[in-house]
Amino acid sequence: MTDHPLFDTPGAHPVGIVGAGLIGLGWTALFVHRGHRVHAHDPDPDTLTGLQDAVETAIVEIEAVDGPRSAGGRLECFSNLAEAVKGCAYVQENAPERLPIKSPVLAEIAESAAPDAVIGSSTTSFTALELGEGQVKPERIIVAHPFNPPHLIPLVEIGGAGDDYEPAIAFAWRFFQSLGREPVHIRIPARGHIANRLSAALFREAVHIVSEGIASVEDVDRAIVHGPGLRWATAGPFMNYHLGAGRGGLAAYLDHLGPAQEARWADLGAPKLDDATKKLLVSEMNETIGDADITQLSGQRARRLAAIRLALAGKS
Amino acid sequence: MTDHPLFDTPGAHPVGIVGAGLIGLGWTALFVHRGHRVHAHDPDPDTLTGLQDAVETAIVEIEAVDGPRSAGGRLECFSNLAEAVKGCAYVQENAPERLPIKSPVLAEIAESAAPDAVIGSSTTSFTALELGEGQVKPERIIVAHPFNPPHLIPLVEIGGAGDDYEPAIAFAWRFFQSLGREPVHIRIPARGHIANRLSAALFREAVHIVSEGIASVEDVDRAIVHGPGLRWATAGPFMNYHLGAGRGGLAAYLDHLGPAQEARWADLGAPKLDDATKKLLVSEMNETIGDADITQLSGQRARRLAAIRLALAGKS
Repeated sequence: MTDHPLFDTPGAHPVGIVGAGLIGLGWTALFVHRGHRVHAHDPDPDTLTGLQDAVETAIVEIEAVDGPRSAGGRLECFSNLAEAVKGCAYVQENAPERLPIKSPVLAEIAESAAPDAVIGSSTTSFTALELGEGQVKPERIIVAHPFNPPHLIPLVEIGGAGDDYEPAIAFAWRFFQSLGREPVHIRIPARGHIANRLSAALFREAVHIVSEGIASVEDVDRAIVHGPGLRWATAGPFMNYHLGAGRGGLAAYLDHLGPAQEARWADLGAPKLDDATKKLLVSEMNETIGDADITQLSGQRARRLAAIRLALAGKS
Repeated sequence: MTDHPLFDTPGAHPVGIVGAGLIGLGWTALFVHRGHRVHAHDPDPDTLTGLQDAVETAIVEIEAVDGPRSAGGRLECFSNLAEAVKGCAYVQENAPERLPIKSPVLAEIAESAAPDAVIGSSTTSFTALELGEGQVKPERIIVAHPFNPPHLIPLVEIGGAGDDYEPAIAFAWRFFQSLGREPVHIRIPARGHIANRLSAALFREAVHIVSEGIASVEDVDRAIVHGPGLRWATAGPFMNYHLGAGRGGLAAYLDHLGPAQEARWADLGAPKLDDATKKLLVSEMNETIGDADITQLSGQRARRLAAIRLALAGKS
């Protein structure tokens, strides 16, 4: 499964998109930009009607970072799911995050796509174990979770639920690498996969710091952006400690500063998102942003993200 | 205290550096690059002898990101602490992280610097409350904690231990802003201040993920670098959730997805850095880096950091 025409000859097989909301749109733009023939389905006719234009806009954003689009990429929309995924070797499922919705959609994809097709789910909430419940060939249905927006953030978290998922994992790994993505492997199904577990841990302490009055929402955000965030865009947490301990690396760090790290862990908070806390967070956020509206702030974040990705190209 | 010749006329008063190890060196380079007359003291004669050359090397790194150095900046070294800080309006203390060492050094600085001088400590471990114990005028001695390396990372965490510290906080805030730094305010003394509390929370879950076998050291680091790390260099955790919930912003996020966030919090781990865990982390790290030595890896991180800071200039 690690050798497939899809990897080297993008137009050879269609790639399926099921669910064309924001996440499905990002995936579609990425696949088309990389030269794939995308067959997209969404149950909502209006979503399908607007998709082509929205994809073109997103492709412009990709081109600003990754360069011109490959030849041959194009989008075809299908109101019928079975027709959309027919003959597809890979299908990306982006249905709403409810298992009673996702499960029948996954079953229908599996029935209509190519017999050995791999189905990647964009699910944030569910593990491959949960997705596989009641499916005929669960080992073809894996987690392939992007970090929003999928067309601009390289991370894709890929995971199955046991050894028999290995061919599908290997296929998806190669496929996403061929798209210039950065796949990581969820080896054991876990709530929140990897990146959202780490984000949740950071956010919990951020909420604790604000609710205890140690710092404001604005200063917590500024501390991350101008401090650890800058470093985490250059190297992960383990590498940063490896490089922070002189010649001895991570081993020396853990031996000398492990106890200080554990003391910090013991002092971390476990806040609740109760009404008083939510009110405090929202009121401080409103103070921070003043008159700036969400479109402005989103645009600013997108420009900074594009600038960073461009700056890092060729420096990995 | 928010109006002082030091802010607009860098050469007007000397700035003191006490302790010229790696952190003191970074501060010295930053102050000299911004046109200050720096009076540096270190008890080790060899450190002082090598300081001028090391500072010039660090200034080259600053210039690559922030442009050419200001006129008038220069370094003078003193083997005697009292002579170094005499007449200084601001002194940055970078003594070893042990209170029995720091306390007498801070007392000596306070006695010899200008009568209204502000003394900022680079301390990672101690709060302003602890630094002030037994000092004659504790309200002049504040935390001014950089994120390593101080000459390249803009964050400076500033904190006192009560209302009477306000003039010193305001002074330091203005001073670090005049240096192009990004000060944040630690409003209540807390172990690890702000950024290291957040880093510890992330690292705890990173260790948990590896020790449970959910993902490898390499994939945890790659997940951060290619996912959340990229985003945190563009916007802080609160802003990211504010922008991730459509028009309703953070309030909508907390109302709709707060319960999912709390469920993730409940699932986070509380690992120990015991021998088996340390061994696992170090062995996976060694597998990750292969033949690359620390100098290579450090150089790579520094190049990526410089590229990002350059890319973000003017995009904040």
